[in-house]
Amino acid sequence: MSDADTTVETLRESTRAFVAEREWEKYHTPKNLAMSLAIEAAELMEHFQWLEPAESHATANVPATKAAIADELADVLCYALSLANVLQIDVSNAVLGKLEKNALKYPAERFRGRYRAD
Amino acid sequence: MSDADTTVETLRESTRAFVAEREWEKYHTPKNLAMSLAIEAAELMEHFQWLEPAESHATANVPATKAAIADELADVLCYALSLANVLQIDVSNAVLGKLEKNALKYPAERFRGRYRAD
Amino acid sequence: MSDADTTVETLRESTRAFVAEREWEKYHTPKNLAMSLAIEAAELMEHFQWLEPAESHATANVPATKAAIADELADVLCYALSLANVLQIDVSNAVLGKLEKNALKYPAERFRGRYRAD
Amino acid sequence: MSDADTTVETLRESTRAFVAEREWEKYHTPKNLAMSLAIEAAELMEHFQWLEPAESHATANVPATKAAIADELADVLCYALSLANVLQIDVSNAVLGKLEKNALKYPAERFRGRYRAD
Repeated sequence: MSDADTTVETLRESTRAFVAEREWEKYHTPKNLAMSLAIEAAELMEHFQWLEPAESHATANVPATKAAIADELADVLCYALSLANVLQIDVSNAVLGKLEKNALKYPAERFRGRYRAD
Repeated sequence: MSDADTTVETLRESTRAFVAEREWEKYHTPKNLAMSLAIEAAELMEHFQWLEPAESHATANVPATKAAIADELADVLCYALSLANVLQIDVSNAVLGKLEKNALKYPAERFRGRYRAD
Repeated sequence: MSDADTTVETLRESTRAFVAEREWEKYHTPKNLAMSLAIEAAELMEHFQWLEPAESHATANVPATKAAIADELADVLCYALSLANVLQIDVSNAVLGKLEKNALKYPAERFRGRYRAD
Repeated sequence: MSDADTTVETLRESTRAFVAEREWEKYHTPKNLAMSLAIEAAELMEHFQWLEPAESHATANVPATKAAIADELADVLCYALSLANVLQIDVSNAVLGKLEKNALKYPAERFRGRYRAD
């Protein structure tokens, strides 16, 4: 399985099944899931804590580090998908809709190569 | 488009195109993306800051709040997908692989209804 | 030593000396310190991840847990003080000034017992 | 008032009074305070999101930015002190004790100029 042939629903469903098999739904309040997501995001960030940004590419590509980062990224995504499950948010709609909004907020011609307009 | 018929690659590709059109790749170091992800995760968490966990279901289902939460969740996911793009991490493999690891770490029969084993 | 007879400057100076003895000033950019503070804040939060808020009082008062929490809180404060050192921010002024601003933003009579005004 | 002549207890007491005047103690569970601390830490981090670490010194010293950062740092500290108030943790003991532990963990001679030993 790879991103090219896996739907978002497949990942959501796998996450939902994992939670259901353990009867963990009671812990999965939106508040707790948002906290958990933030905790995992911080663990991901820890890999880059003292690096120069440019350096962070090289470090992240060391195989053992890359595997650890992929693992942390998976934790982030599992909680994000669990939150989507609990709140019945369609992730694809949310992401594509946000990119459209951001395209209006950051018109390519004004923001090309910079994140602040003059 | 909905999660049922959208592949993860489609979302990755939309995110990649958004970044490329603005030539923002230079800002998208792994370090900066991990920071951005953590910042967005905190903004998501802010919606639940003072709520009781149980209360957080009801609040999150108020339509205007739910739309705001979906927007923040989209921000989290856009940065997560951008990090996957930059590091060439297959998200589906990472998530499904992590669920398998977690299934061994938290056997359903020992952790049913609780997040700590006795 | 205790909070009653320790000035903020004493804590700042101890933190500064620790960093100087290791010649770690080069790592202590404002960006890295802000990241580190956020990472430690998440580690602190982890102690309360799955608890009901009310429950979190009892748990936090289990002696071993309380000691671990005090340790994480110290990490948060060391990075906060290091950031104040690097940016030459007077912490006492900042805190007391912010409380004054917040007193205007949240007048006691309108916000008594609630965090949102009607 | 400045850090040189302000005790930690003075700041704790000011924070405690602010909370008591609004009868906000009921919101100040350890879980909620830890979340709030993490949210404010992320807002502080946002000032440095896209900067090179070295650049972050210059940016943080632009007066308007520095004032905004001091404000965010104050928010972080108010929640840290509130958590210490709620859990009756002596902050000075915690910080000085942690520096002693870290001095053993990171002996100056082995970690001088680097954050990892060989």
